[in-house]
Amino acid sequence: MNFELHKEWFENLRGLILNDLKSIEKKSFTETKWNHSQKGGGIMTKIKGDIIEKGGVNISTVGGEFSENMQNRIPGANKDPKYQATGISIVIHPKSPLIPSMHFNTRYIKTSRSWFGGGMDVTPSNDYENESKFFHSELKKLCDKHDESYYKKYKEWCDKYFFLPHRNEPRGIGGIFFDYLDSGKRSDDFKFVKDVGLFFKKYLIDIILKYKDMPWSDNHVKNQLIKRGRYVEFNLLHDRGTKFGLETGGNIDAILMSMPPLAMWK
Amino acid sequence: MNFELHKEWFENLRGLILNDLKSIEKKSFTETKWNHSQKGGGIMTKIKGDIIEKGGVNISTVGGEFSENMQNRIPGANKDPKYQATGISIVIHPKSPLIPSMHFNTRYIKTSRSWFGGGMDVTPSNDYENESKFFHSELKKLCDKHDESYYKKYKEWCDKYFFLPHRNEPRGIGGIFFDYLDSGKRSDDFKFVKDVGLFFKKYLIDIILKYKDMPWSDNHVKNQLIKRGRYVEFNLLHDRGTKFGLETGGNIDAILMSMPPLAMWK
Repeated sequence: MNFELHKEWFENLRGLILNDLKSIEKKSFTETKWNHSQKGGGIMTKIKGDIIEKGGVNISTVGGEFSENMQNRIPGANKDPKYQATGISIVIHPKSPLIPSMHFNTRYIKTSRSWFGGGMDVTPSNDYENESKFFHSELKKLCDKHDESYYKKYKEWCDKYFFLPHRNEPRGIGGIFFDYLDSGKRSDDFKFVKDVGLFFKKYLIDIILKYKDMPWSDNHVKNQLIKRGRYVEFNLLHDRGTKFGLETGGNIDAILMSMPPLAMWK
Repeated sequence: MNFELHKEWFENLRGLILNDLKSIEKKSFTETKWNHSQKGGGIMTKIKGDIIEKGGVNISTVGGEFSENMQNRIPGANKDPKYQATGISIVIHPKSPLIPSMHFNTRYIKTSRSWFGGGMDVTPSNDYENESKFFHSELKKLCDKHDESYYKKYKEWCDKYFFLPHRNEPRGIGGIFFDYLDSGKRSDDFKFVKDVGLFFKKYLIDIILKYKDMPWSDNHVKNQLIKRGRYVEFNLLHDRGTKFGLETGGNIDAILMSMPPLAMWK
């Protein structure tokens, strides 16, 4: 019952965000629906446009049984390997080097236990200091509305996760990242997850509209290409989702949807 | 004694190849010498030019003791963890999308045993079929001069190594790849390794000179950028040297010298 409700929310959020994106970016949305009789199904929307140089909006609902290897790593899966998962995941690489790459996902997983996970983070390639302060203060407000311990905890989790150890540098300016969220009050957790989604929806559009017509320089573009190289390094070397997808032989287009359109190494 | 001799050869080969490259590419060779009192030293030459968009020529001689973890994986290191290693490694990403990226290295390792390793491979992004046939037939001739079993064995090793399992596609057109070469006649092995180096020296320059002034299209460039994306995927996801370097905290510039200047994901 809960599962259907959460799935429906992710689908609604997908529709809302795609509507917004279509109001800005008129062309080049490619939708691929997939259905697998055993695994489940989803919709992958690829964007290649003038404002959004490359982006992806993915939604999927899958289920099955975790392999023995996974059963000990996933909460509640040691009792019963069956699981269901539903979620939405978005990566946007805007054309303008003044607009950061933005990443968001939320998901609901059900084994013999159940929980939410997700987060959002932002990767600017040029000066973003004031915007960064604003982003984090707004994120804090959002979190505080639900639980005053959330922001600190989830910001730190995000900083720790989106970090390139081989360069000793963060991927971007962070954001929030949470997993295994099960406070005991499912409806409260669901409200938080909904708010995180609506926050991202608003932030994404606000930032694009604010900067999309601002002129940029070759140097801005160079910084963007270098930063995108770091993005590639992170995703291929460290990202759990990418690694998991590649190891389990998932759809390569969906797994690498997060890759930037162009990246540079000096 | 042998070690010094082999080290000297790699240094000589470096000089010969750099001379050739400097006759083609007039500018932008940056040389970085490094010396570490315990580990050893080397010279890293970075090329950023008009014909060679990005390239690196690395030479290094290092020594020390293998960690316990490595001792069981490296021949002869379980008896005594001490090792010495000397070698040369080159990656060239030409500007013209009609010229393939080219990669070469040879090395000599000494533990309680000793052996040569190395190889070369070529990654075109546009039609290269006839060149590929020629390259392989010349490689076969080179190998046959030393041992008629080499070409088949080392070509297969190369094909197996430079392969992207997540895309089920080879990185390029292959070449040869060998390791633990210790036939019992060191001087013969050394002759083979020298010939491999001289073959690469000639091939590199011949191909650059043949194609550098030939006009190319936007479509050629697009194919090149996509292929370079695959190059990045291989190096970050699969290359043993890159992984080893990143895990052991080596110099990030040297480790990622092999990255292409620009790469694209559709």
